[in-house]
Amino acid sequence: MTEATSTQVQLAARPTGWPTADTFRTVQVTYGDLEPGQVRVVNEFVSVDPYMRGRMNDVKSYVPPFALDETMTGAAVGRVVESRSDDVEVGALVQHQYGWRDVVQEDARGFQVLPEIPGAPSSLYLGILGMTGLTAYVGLTAIADLREGDTVFVSGAAGAVGTAVGQIARLLGASRVIGSAGSPEKVELLTGRYGYDAAFNYKDASVREQLRDVTPDGVDLFFDNVGGDHLEAALDRMNTGGRVALCGAISQYNDTERSPGPDNLANATTRSLTLRGFTLGGYLDHAPRFRELMTGWFSDGRIAYDETVVDGIENAPQAFLDMMRGGNIGKMVVRTGA
Amino acid sequence: MTEATSTQVQLAARPTGWPTADTFRTVQVTYGDLEPGQVRVVNEFVSVDPYMRGRMNDVKSYVPPFALDETMTGAAVGRVVESRSDDVEVGALVQHQYGWRDVVQEDARGFQVLPEIPGAPSSLYLGILGMTGLTAYVGLTAIADLREGDTVFVSGAAGAVGTAVGQIARLLGASRVIGSAGSPEKVELLTGRYGYDAAFNYKDASVREQLRDVTPDGVDLFFDNVGGDHLEAALDRMNTGGRVALCGAISQYNDTERSPGPDNLANATTRSLTLRGFTLGGYLDHAPRFRELMTGWFSDGRIAYDETVVDGIENAPQAFLDMMRGGNIGKMVVRTGA
Repeated sequence: MTEATSTQVQLAARPTGWPTADTFRTVQVTYGDLEPGQVRVVNEFVSVDPYMRGRMNDVKSYVPPFALDETMTGAAVGRVVESRSDDVEVGALVQHQYGWRDVVQEDARGFQVLPEIPGAPSSLYLGILGMTGLTAYVGLTAIADLREGDTVFVSGAAGAVGTAVGQIARLLGASRVIGSAGSPEKVELLTGRYGYDAAFNYKDASVREQLRDVTPDGVDLFFDNVGGDHLEAALDRMNTGGRVALCGAISQYNDTERSPGPDNLANATTRSLTLRGFTLGGYLDHAPRFRELMTGWFSDGRIAYDETVVDGIENAPQAFLDMMRGGNIGKMVVRTGA
Repeated sequence: MTEATSTQVQLAARPTGWPTADTFRTVQVTYGDLEPGQVRVVNEFVSVDPYMRGRMNDVKSYVPPFALDETMTGAAVGRVVESRSDDVEVGALVQHQYGWRDVVQEDARGFQVLPEIPGAPSSLYLGILGMTGLTAYVGLTAIADLREGDTVFVSGAAGAVGTAVGQIARLLGASRVIGSAGSPEKVELLTGRYGYDAAFNYKDASVREQLRDVTPDGVDLFFDNVGGDHLEAALDRMNTGGRVALCGAISQYNDTERSPGPDNLANATTRSLTLRGFTLGGYLDHAPRFRELMTGWFSDGRIAYDETVVDGIENAPQAFLDMMRGGNIGKMVVRTGA
């Protein structure tokens, strides 16, 4: 048994608009000897995710807000280095929600031992093999009822969820996959490595026009991570009976005023569209089937991925902000270096 | 066999914004002797409906636009006065889509013989016993998945579809029904004759505030006939897992510019909401079950109704405009007087 020092990032103030240097604070915490039932985990990777912006506000939502002056919670993966639990062994790779810290010490029940897939870096359990991949899978299947032959449009397609959506859609039978992203490099990646049939840079020209040009036969399923002009553009192109999974609206999370919605929502009536929002919490029963499918695809080498890795837990705030500005390709993770 | 003169209202010009006196023209048509297979029908009632505004525009939609310089089509009921068809007898009450005219003469296949419900005025087959009632039923059940105990909010609740929605919702198990309407008389009618638990006049104050005041436990199902501020207000009050049937947006049909959508559509994601638009065409297979249920309810005296009747087929344009401005209570119909 030993003491351990943990570097942790706390929420110091609730931001208005974009978070700033004052929003977060880095602290050192010293853990003493383990209590019975506890484990000590050294984190390898910590996740930064768009939904965290909403939790920085003090408003009622589907998850409670982050507590002020407490360490930011969220997904992380690490190795157990000490254990006083019969259920969790030293050396196990675990996932948990203790968030932005390099070392964590808590009751073993707060940690989930991961069934490791051979050849998979541990960071992927925060990404395509974890909640991110599951979000893509649930959105396509349970929410938007993906059908063989669908034309699928994904906004924010080079992001963590987006890169998963395009691949899973294709593996499940979509005939045409189209994506938007925010740089020429990302667009090239989508049509190259990720096999998109078409992609465009939403910063180049109006999304409405660009989407129209690449969807001569319309869109059957839209997986929206962006909101705003992307949703409006997609509603113009949806085919009758089309389905929209409203997963996120990253374009608006830092707005200080409410943005108007799409000016063509009436299309939902005339074209019999279904728009369905979701957060993953209500769909965790899909995890076993997803894990089975994804393990197979991954082991067969059918899954591509990118990660954007930032080093140092003290850089988690900057990683979060970079991700919100689209600085990532694929999943953004923080390598703790602990 | 005789000749017959028919007064008919044609679309003379495509309106921009609100239709005017120049939009329509009344003509006299003379029908000669019946051809084999034809019937002659004297209309009793002709329907004016909100969806007709969309068909006056020359845009692709779920139904083709009305043809210029042709008689306005739409639902009507009448009696067969002459027949050269073996399938349709003189005296039969029939429904058809030949629209704004007092006499019609066409092939018998264009007419549907109505199974008359004892005690029901023929106008009701254009309203609560017909497509209007079916629209309410389909929207509540197939589209918005009405559940026992739901709190239901109906916009435009004193209109044709609205009066049907409130009653059917209650008969199918809703525990609380709330409506909006555009006059104190309508509000009183809703909480009186139609048994709404609460109702408000949307012209009195902001819909957002008024709806909040009467929905302390939120809304599970929203049946929207109005759009605009009503949809926005409802999205604020929807409970997690709530369902929205997007039936119409009468507040916007005469807009010359596109109106922005709701500023809180992000609630769809955080609260796992489903918004589903529909037009009746895809759901006609629900008609037999609806007819069975509604015939029972009506015969048991459990269905209230109002109609706003305008006399004279030449007044159909004015009836249509009055309906679009909310001048009707319940279904607006034109009595041909032929």
